[in-house]
Amino acid sequence: MINVGITGAGGLVGEGLVRTLLGHPGVELVYVESSHAAGKRLDEEFPGLAGMTDVVFDAPDLQKACSTADVMFLAHKGAQSMAAVPEILAAGRKVIDIGGEFRLRNAEEYEKWYGGRHTARDFLSRAVYGLPELFREQIEKADLVANPGCYPTGLVLLVAPFLKSGLITDRLHVSGFSGLTGAGRRYVEKTSNLFIDVNENIRSYAVLKHRHQPEMSDALARYLGRRVEVSFAPHLIPADRGILTVVWAEAERDVTTAEAAGICGDFYGMEPFVRVRKDASDVLLKNVFATNYCDVGAAADGHTLYLVSAIDNTTKGAVTQAVQNMNIMFGIDEGTGITGRFV
Amino acid sequence: MINVGITGAGGLVGEGLVRTLLGHPGVELVYVESSHAAGKRLDEEFPGLAGMTDVVFDAPDLQKACSTADVMFLAHKGAQSMAAVPEILAAGRKVIDIGGEFRLRNAEEYEKWYGGRHTARDFLSRAVYGLPELFREQIEKADLVANPGCYPTGLVLLVAPFLKSGLITDRLHVSGFSGLTGAGRRYVEKTSNLFIDVNENIRSYAVLKHRHQPEMSDALARYLGRRVEVSFAPHLIPADRGILTVVWAEAERDVTTAEAAGICGDFYGMEPFVRVRKDASDVLLKNVFATNYCDVGAAADGHTLYLVSAIDNTTKGAVTQAVQNMNIMFGIDEGTGITGRFV
Amino acid sequence: MINVGITGAGGLVGEGLVRTLLGHPGVELVYVESSHAAGKRLDEEFPGLAGMTDVVFDAPDLQKACSTADVMFLAHKGAQSMAAVPEILAAGRKVIDIGGEFRLRNAEEYEKWYGGRHTARDFLSRAVYGLPELFREQIEKADLVANPGCYPTGLVLLVAPFLKSGLITDRLHVSGFSGLTGAGRRYVEKTSNLFIDVNENIRSYAVLKHRHQPEMSDALARYLGRRVEVSFAPHLIPADRGILTVVWAEAERDVTTAEAAGICGDFYGMEPFVRVRKDASDVLLKNVFATNYCDVGAAADGHTLYLVSAIDNTTKGAVTQAVQNMNIMFGIDEGTGITGRFV
Amino acid sequence: MINVGITGAGGLVGEGLVRTLLGHPGVELVYVESSHAAGKRLDEEFPGLAGMTDVVFDAPDLQKACSTADVMFLAHKGAQSMAAVPEILAAGRKVIDIGGEFRLRNAEEYEKWYGGRHTARDFLSRAVYGLPELFREQIEKADLVANPGCYPTGLVLLVAPFLKSGLITDRLHVSGFSGLTGAGRRYVEKTSNLFIDVNENIRSYAVLKHRHQPEMSDALARYLGRRVEVSFAPHLIPADRGILTVVWAEAERDVTTAEAAGICGDFYGMEPFVRVRKDASDVLLKNVFATNYCDVGAAADGHTLYLVSAIDNTTKGAVTQAVQNMNIMFGIDEGTGITGRFV
Repeated sequence: MINVGITGAGGLVGEGLVRTLLGHPGVELVYVESSHAAGKRLDEEFPGLAGMTDVVFDAPDLQKACSTADVMFLAHKGAQSMAAVPEILAAGRKVIDIGGEFRLRNAEEYEKWYGGRHTARDFLSRAVYGLPELFREQIEKADLVANPGCYPTGLVLLVAPFLKSGLITDRLHVSGFSGLTGAGRRYVEKTSNLFIDVNENIRSYAVLKHRHQPEMSDALARYLGRRVEVSFAPHLIPADRGILTVVWAEAERDVTTAEAAGICGDFYGMEPFVRVRKDASDVLLKNVFATNYCDVGAAADGHTLYLVSAIDNTTKGAVTQAVQNMNIMFGIDEGTGITGRFV
Repeated sequence: MINVGITGAGGLVGEGLVRTLLGHPGVELVYVESSHAAGKRLDEEFPGLAGMTDVVFDAPDLQKACSTADVMFLAHKGAQSMAAVPEILAAGRKVIDIGGEFRLRNAEEYEKWYGGRHTARDFLSRAVYGLPELFREQIEKADLVANPGCYPTGLVLLVAPFLKSGLITDRLHVSGFSGLTGAGRRYVEKTSNLFIDVNENIRSYAVLKHRHQPEMSDALARYLGRRVEVSFAPHLIPADRGILTVVWAEAERDVTTAEAAGICGDFYGMEPFVRVRKDASDVLLKNVFATNYCDVGAAADGHTLYLVSAIDNTTKGAVTQAVQNMNIMFGIDEGTGITGRFV
Repeated sequence: MINVGITGAGGLVGEGLVRTLLGHPGVELVYVESSHAAGKRLDEEFPGLAGMTDVVFDAPDLQKACSTADVMFLAHKGAQSMAAVPEILAAGRKVIDIGGEFRLRNAEEYEKWYGGRHTARDFLSRAVYGLPELFREQIEKADLVANPGCYPTGLVLLVAPFLKSGLITDRLHVSGFSGLTGAGRRYVEKTSNLFIDVNENIRSYAVLKHRHQPEMSDALARYLGRRVEVSFAPHLIPADRGILTVVWAEAERDVTTAEAAGICGDFYGMEPFVRVRKDASDVLLKNVFATNYCDVGAAADGHTLYLVSAIDNTTKGAVTQAVQNMNIMFGIDEGTGITGRFV
Repeated sequence: MINVGITGAGGLVGEGLVRTLLGHPGVELVYVESSHAAGKRLDEEFPGLAGMTDVVFDAPDLQKACSTADVMFLAHKGAQSMAAVPEILAAGRKVIDIGGEFRLRNAEEYEKWYGGRHTARDFLSRAVYGLPELFREQIEKADLVANPGCYPTGLVLLVAPFLKSGLITDRLHVSGFSGLTGAGRRYVEKTSNLFIDVNENIRSYAVLKHRHQPEMSDALARYLGRRVEVSFAPHLIPADRGILTVVWAEAERDVTTAEAAGICGDFYGMEPFVRVRKDASDVLLKNVFATNYCDVGAAADGHTLYLVSAIDNTTKGAVTQAVQNMNIMFGIDEGTGITGRFV
């Protein structure tokens, strides 16, 4: 049994972690922290959980948590993880940070895009980027995993095979289309998440200014060993969940749709959670809904290449990918507790 | 291990059964029949299943199926189950029929509402109505279970406590509001299920003429031992899944909201899959999404009583309730494979 | 030309009034007030209006407004209209109040349901209930019109023919289903109007406690001359606009669907904005979207009667009905500026 | 008064034309043809029109139509217009063809992308491409106008300023995101338009194979006098109406967001139906809903340029643009009958 703690469990990611880990056969929840909901039952905050758990939210007490938990999932907002990570590691426990604080290798870049000071710089080099399909061996040995952002997950898995093979190079133009769970459970005034502003609508936001843009670039650089320029425009679509990622490129040579799919197929081989679709139009949100899958596809004509991937932003884009990382870190079967989907 | 067969597995209910049973620890799928998809892989027909199963649809061969399956789920359309049920029972196997052929006890009523001849009349009295919360003991001993319709599931669980306690009597006015999976995977010309006809819309259909109206009446009569008149109006709402059921009544005496909730609470006690909500406004589709739960609630003022329930039409309204019935019939824990929800 | 002023023009109703009145051939906008947006261009607050108007929001100055406006539409929140109405009437101008302050005839009832003190009690008896189909002659002569609430509009037009004819009596059980524009442009914490809480969901709120419940009762009493008990449950549906209203009743005698439609047809005759549908399933939101129509229909079996109406909550339920009232008050063709719909 | 005829009026475009032209002060509808609905009232086929018109669909009789109509809108499917256009022009009437038959200048290209033989080749050079913002002077003198496709309208208006100014050159990568009215009123099996397949989903279709790809290229070539390569991927989004068009480009020089907006602003100047937004995130479907506007915006960083436009596919993308063309062809004010939006 892996004893698991969660901080910031009162948000959407926290709810998802609780749901998923309650059904994970190798896990015991020993600490479920929420500062705003401490003392409340989980199913009072998340009425959908009624009947599934009697657990009560813990008040913040990291020291106590570290005395029992083998691994901590950090799901709170922002800066708190920069304080928590050193403490947890010092106690000899493992950490999976779901926020953005340990995803960029360079502290200056973090400070430029995130706006605050990075107070745990020494740990950046220790953090492994938790995208199992590209960094599995490092994750196996890691005690600090930075769980990828939702948009970077969809993008990096999509383009890695083509950059690696040299079919495409340098500069990427990335359009992402996300459901609204990405905006969390609270009202966001800028880029409103009210129903009447989202329904029957589609729009971009934070074009060329989103924090996931440098993360995409840095994650690819970790993998390829060279810098890749990324320009990124996120968009909101009227759906709860899922991200479709679209990339156009001019390839280094003529290529067919079948060849492009073949490059992906060769690259991912037996990967359990990446599915290569023959036709780009078979890459769609419904097929990955509530799963840990990333579906990828391509269409080509001459040099021109259209690439597309689909993930569920709350599962592969956050919750189940974090559990996948935990499974790898603890040497148990990678798909435990995150395979399938309940109807 | 329970060896399970499914007929008509190429529809939405079939897909749901396959998904659910693949994750059921006590089940082996031995027959997955579809006349239109025979020979195709399941994940070719249902691309969302890719990576989860290598199973191929069987061609219809009930005799062979009965040689290996302990229980057959019948998910095909209409009349076929009247031929299949006698054959399966003769082979000593159990049956859970998900269609409407064995839900009404009276063959004439079936013929009036369903329009064809009932060709397995002798088996109607053998069929147990598969609503575990009211008929669990009969289900335990049954070899033929008629899985309830989606609307009747939501209605019967909602009103049973109030009719049983005598707080309300006789005639029920029932409004049901359903998502579109209820209409299946194919185009339905009458009451169009096209996106542009459903989105940003809400409408009734088949008011006072829906087959689930006599089923509601008959199921309540089975339970109460007396006839209950039901008038039913179904409506389509712009959502994939879920049914909200609304009933207004004038009670036999003054009652408070708390008393009404208390009547439900006493009635359902420790039932694992019915949740009584304190406030009617806490009964909503999102909380039961993709689960086997039925949430119920009430509001009262003087004699006037507003009752409301929520189920997911594809799970509690069909697939997971069928599995719940199987679990009961085979004496294993009732919630096996149908508890929780994957994120 | 009618010179028109609008207060509280910075909300959804204000936006709708501006849009509608800009296209009204007999109207000049002379005062468009918003306390929070004073000095801003309308199309800065409502970017969809860009290119249609150069008007700038006025700061509150009722006195100045009354010097030029022939009629004031009051669209601000709550209590302000109790101060404004006496002032406007004293200046010899007409008022159409879109809030709830002048809809109930009884000040005590207002205070019970709205929670504050009514500070313009003497004007309640002067206010005409602005439902043209029932009170047209009074509206013609009125200088103070209380524009009906959205839910009461749909309900009163639906049941008036049946109560008037004596086919149904006394107590009404009313279920209303509304799109989200009813909740306005701002975040509402209780009964969240966030996308992820509304989408793929349906729920009740304020059951038996909504302010429109006494309004329904009082409006019917105005018309019938006798008290009618109303119990009301509103629900939110995942759509921007529209209200479907459902009423079940046991009629005084057996009735057919055709007879029920006939009663409506006779009652409404040549009414320009009520359409009687032959089949209840033809009453649906899409057909009334963005129009001033109320569609009504019925289904019957024996004594049992299912009644249903559809309106657009922002047009017939607020904006265009207010303009309809203005047209009547100023003796111009009732449909001016509110007929049809733009694609 | 312009006497107007419509062929193929039984589809969504036909319904839109009828709605729009009923409200057009300078038009008389003299012929409303539908082969499948001939003899039916319009409001029987389109119940939303009840109360607005008593018109009955005409059976096909082009000769008779040409004896009264000054202009014919051709809204039927495909090949019929190749027979109709010569006949109408021979009768001295004007034509606005809403199908794709006269949009490409080259018959071979038409046959390659549309699959049939072009039987009115001689008229291709006579057809003017009906995008008023680029071809107004030609439209004024035209008797045959090819109304643009929905996707090309959004794309051409978006990129024309940047190609013209030389800021971007040659090859365009175009992603379009469309609501479902684009798929018409009937079931489309391939790329299903059923609610459950569209809702909570987003997907591409016909990538690099859509007929609007050569139309984009040809329309730009008409305007610029040189060939522009276009690669196009359309996508379906869960919404009724609207198209968002996204283009990424590497500019010939560094450019700021403000400069990019300025280029658009200078280009469109006083155009009544193109609105240049300062921020790309202000380009969204809701602001153009049911209007004849095209909103455009840009974001830039160094050489990298993100361009985005929004139109309503049924209005600017078809119906109201066709009426805009008619207004120009008949020398009346260009915005007559298509300005504003009804609430």
